[in-house]
Amino acid sequence: MRKIGYLGPEGTFCQEAYYRLNEETLWGKGVIYPTIHNIIKGVAVGEIEEGIVPIENSIEGSVNLTIDLLIHQYDLKIKREIIIPIRHHLMTKGKKQPESLKIIISHPQAAFQCRRYLEEKIPHARFREASSTAQAAFIVANRQGPIGAIAGERAAIVYNLEIIEKDIQMVENNYTRFIVVAKEDNGIITGNDKTSIVFSVDNKPGCLYRVLQEFAERGLNLTKIESRPSRRTLGEYIFWVDVDGHREERKIKDAIESIKGKSQILKVMGSYPVDLSFK
Amino acid sequence: MRKIGYLGPEGTFCQEAYYRLNEETLWGKGVIYPTIHNIIKGVAVGEIEEGIVPIENSIEGSVNLTIDLLIHQYDLKIKREIIIPIRHHLMTKGKKQPESLKIIISHPQAAFQCRRYLEEKIPHARFREASSTAQAAFIVANRQGPIGAIAGERAAIVYNLEIIEKDIQMVENNYTRFIVVAKEDNGIITGNDKTSIVFSVDNKPGCLYRVLQEFAERGLNLTKIESRPSRRTLGEYIFWVDVDGHREERKIKDAIESIKGKSQILKVMGSYPVDLSFK
Repeated sequence: MRKIGYLGPEGTFCQEAYYRLNEETLWGKGVIYPTIHNIIKGVAVGEIEEGIVPIENSIEGSVNLTIDLLIHQYDLKIKREIIIPIRHHLMTKGKKQPESLKIIISHPQAAFQCRRYLEEKIPHARFREASSTAQAAFIVANRQGPIGAIAGERAAIVYNLEIIEKDIQMVENNYTRFIVVAKEDNGIITGNDKTSIVFSVDNKPGCLYRVLQEFAERGLNLTKIESRPSRRTLGEYIFWVDVDGHREERKIKDAIESIKGKSQILKVMGSYPVDLSFK
Repeated sequence: MRKIGYLGPEGTFCQEAYYRLNEETLWGKGVIYPTIHNIIKGVAVGEIEEGIVPIENSIEGSVNLTIDLLIHQYDLKIKREIIIPIRHHLMTKGKKQPESLKIIISHPQAAFQCRRYLEEKIPHARFREASSTAQAAFIVANRQGPIGAIAGERAAIVYNLEIIEKDIQMVENNYTRFIVVAKEDNGIITGNDKTSIVFSVDNKPGCLYRVLQEFAERGLNLTKIESRPSRRTLGEYIFWVDVDGHREERKIKDAIESIKGKSQILKVMGSYPVDLSFK
């Protein structure tokens, strides 16, 4: 049984991604890790075969920590993507009235996304910060009193809390994209794949343009492009792009070959099936 | 006298940027703000004429908060850039031996950048987190005992601390780039200018490429490119680019004109003189 690491505690959206992955692949055993770095390191040293980490959110953007670790520090591949809708609910231990709550506990980002609801419905409640929405639910499950957590459905299930108000976030289209990192990518062409590629660009006119040209001229669609500092000097970047297609397909193969001559750093992070549950 | 907002407390690298700006322009009055958002809002509502905010660091990358506020929430311009080298020193109240310190206080990022020094020289000291390096220096200045702060030179001056070990960071090339936001950019061509431009790109093959083409074909150099989520759906981006040249110069003018037809959103964030103190 292969071991799959994900971000704890139980009830996180990352655990949700783990359940989705396991439903599809059927034979994993989950291992909880406290940080993104621990998961990636866990895969690198062979403690676990696969690790699930967040890479971007539709509101907050890329998770720079994940990207920087994979670019600069570890030599791992991506074998799958899992896109999870982020929906926040208000939950309590046993049924309570939202207006009766005196303390709301959550991750600050989740609370911020629910600020309109909180201002309108529970303006007098105090806010307490937790390190994750799942952690907030855990605390509420273990305490008495007029206290509620903002967290996802999985957290309510895991900690046996009552959802007293559903979907209190004010943002729409809130998705987090997780990737599964491993020593190998998904070598098989499924016909609906994505390839992640990292390359450096010199600080000269048109350098990025000439790399992107290799994709554009072949009609290849980029679904993600992200710049990160090279860490050598200001204004020098490493780019992360996701392109539709598999690295074993002709067009992608040719594009990668051509970029080799134009870029000092080139790292194919892997090809993997597109998450078709999204959109 | 025009009022210039910057990030407090006194002794921050942002205050350092304020002194540099004021040295050059001679007639500002500093106003301390607690957050980036407060500064930007302060300029927007007219509390202050100019605000200094960090936009990127050579190690950590872009300051997404600054970029997102300027893209999505406020309609301000950039009138200057100021690049400050980030150097961390160990400082105490009165001269003390580094080995004698039991508590080190700093911003977690600064401590992380100095971890090698801390591990080798003061392995038994406990770490306490402060919200900024300047805040750490403030705390050390107001307490007795074997406690030291990691902060910049400005903090040592402001809080009258003794620098007992200089340059303890392990990273080189650590710079933070600040921008001065105002209602107007710098309209005057100095001959060594930069222009910041924000544009959206459709999620179709080659869209970004066709925008970058407008710069590349005119030999215009991009010194920064950063993608941010459009906040509408995953895989749809807004780009921030900095290009060498002034918006009143022919090539830049033409490029902007051409991009207008290719992009749903186009926002010229302003032209301003390049910080020549850097490199």
